[in-house]
Amino acid sequence: MNDRTSPQDLRERRLVEEVVASFGATADPRVRTVLTALVEHLHAFLREVRLTQGEWQQAIDFLTAAGHITDDKRQEFILLSDVLGASMQTIIINDDPTGAATEATVVGPFFLDDAPLVPLGGDISFGASGEPCWVEGTVTDTSGRPLAGARLEVWEADDDGRYDVQYPDGRVAARGRLFTDADGGYRFWAVTPTPYPIPDDGPVGALLAATGRSPMRAPHLHFMASHEGMRTLATHIFVAGDDLGSDSVFGIRESLVVDFPRHAGDEPTPDGRQVTGSWTRARFDITLSPAS
Amino acid sequence: MNDRTSPQDLRERRLVEEVVASFGATADPRVRTVLTALVEHLHAFLREVRLTQGEWQQAIDFLTAAGHITDDKRQEFILLSDVLGASMQTIIINDDPTGAATEATVVGPFFLDDAPLVPLGGDISFGASGEPCWVEGTVTDTSGRPLAGARLEVWEADDDGRYDVQYPDGRVAARGRLFTDADGGYRFWAVTPTPYPIPDDGPVGALLAATGRSPMRAPHLHFMASHEGMRTLATHIFVAGDDLGSDSVFGIRESLVVDFPRHAGDEPTPDGRQVTGSWTRARFDITLSPAS
Repeated sequence: MNDRTSPQDLRERRLVEEVVASFGATADPRVRTVLTALVEHLHAFLREVRLTQGEWQQAIDFLTAAGHITDDKRQEFILLSDVLGASMQTIIINDDPTGAATEATVVGPFFLDDAPLVPLGGDISFGASGEPCWVEGTVTDTSGRPLAGARLEVWEADDDGRYDVQYPDGRVAARGRLFTDADGGYRFWAVTPTPYPIPDDGPVGALLAATGRSPMRAPHLHFMASHEGMRTLATHIFVAGDDLGSDSVFGIRESLVVDFPRHAGDEPTPDGRQVTGSWTRARFDITLSPAS
Repeated sequence: MNDRTSPQDLRERRLVEEVVASFGATADPRVRTVLTALVEHLHAFLREVRLTQGEWQQAIDFLTAAGHITDDKRQEFILLSDVLGASMQTIIINDDPTGAATEATVVGPFFLDDAPLVPLGGDISFGASGEPCWVEGTVTDTSGRPLAGARLEVWEADDDGRYDVQYPDGRVAARGRLFTDADGGYRFWAVTPTPYPIPDDGPVGALLAATGRSPMRAPHLHFMASHEGMRTLATHIFVAGDDLGSDSVFGIRESLVVDFPRHAGDEPTPDGRQVTGSWTRARFDITLSPAS
């Protein structure tokens, strides 16, 4: 960095002041606050690294390529936000700060709000490939009181690491909506989560490759839990023992890592269902905090 | 901001450390430096403004719209960089720090490297609309020695505020290439620069509107000056007395503001050319620093 009194430093700081001042007539005070901070941090970055003209051009080219690969099925800017940890930081910033509720994590791009209704004990896989997995738990408030009729949305990738919407055939699979019983309990069959890469054939994939980072996401099952008067929670559970060090979107929080013990096919399942081959089970108790 | 010892603050700082650590295996040390600083400043911004999920989504939507309006003739990401002052800050960071040379400013998107050769005293307008303007000056090194044969590229918008490449008819106008004479001198006819808006029908225009900012650029004439052994300079001259407070891309530097005195059509022109109506003249002496 420069001496704070050099002419060069003065020129650079004067420009920052000029840009900040240009937002002085912004009607919405929140917009002004956000843009002022954006300008200050953006310029601090440029000045700290002494960005070259060539690097500036690379940044323009990167954003242009990200824009051109983005369509209604592919969102490269969300991927970029994800791999820079910006999506997860936004989740943490907006998460229940008391720590009394179950922790949130990234929603990802594959949630649909019209998943099929599945009865308690039913199967959300709808033919998705994978090892059967029994998932159960309760939904309570922060005092431990059961929340009856809480709505749960659950969704996941299949054994090939793909969500239903990533297939061109319009299938609906490995997702469902359930409501908790009078004791706040829930249970369903799914498939055991497996690792999969985020789409890495675009500029974000090139960024990961250039920095020696893996595109793999740690195996997980998505939950969205909601109940009247409670704060809606979007989270995952992760499979304990899998390679949790390399989640490419920084979604792992320790409290969300759950044991998925494996059972042989001849061991009795919780609901007496006949299973071919092995199966796993997981328990996840969810705590919701009051809506603010 | 949070108390530095709160669990919330610890969670947020731990995520930043995790993201920075993910770039630890980057082979190119410069790439690692730039990405580390980018992550630190990006997260500092998110944490400082406590970005909401809705604002995060707005940012994704903004970048997506910018990507979709960008094509080989329209570059919304450069416009965004321009209106946030990032283009100009990059210019200043990379400009000759001694202050002995003529100051640089933004290049803009309208430079072409195959402009027509124009003899000294010739006319670069090639039929572009506008008031005739005589431009002259010298090119010297920082010791004041004339630079003979220095290459000058000059280009500008016409009286309707449009560059030739913004017309669909393939015209080449209001641009040219000249070489200085044995005394480092140059002179040519052009048109008097007039204000014009940057393209404001996209997301960057919406940003300017939401913040009460004008899309207008201060009137200017572009120069690119080069000579063997010297640092290439891309700059503008601005018209003194025009509204210089509102350049939408922050390109104005005081040393680049030049008088364009206006003359009646019956006053003799510098080269005896007959002019209908008024004409202006401007002098701009250029100093190049040694290539490093």
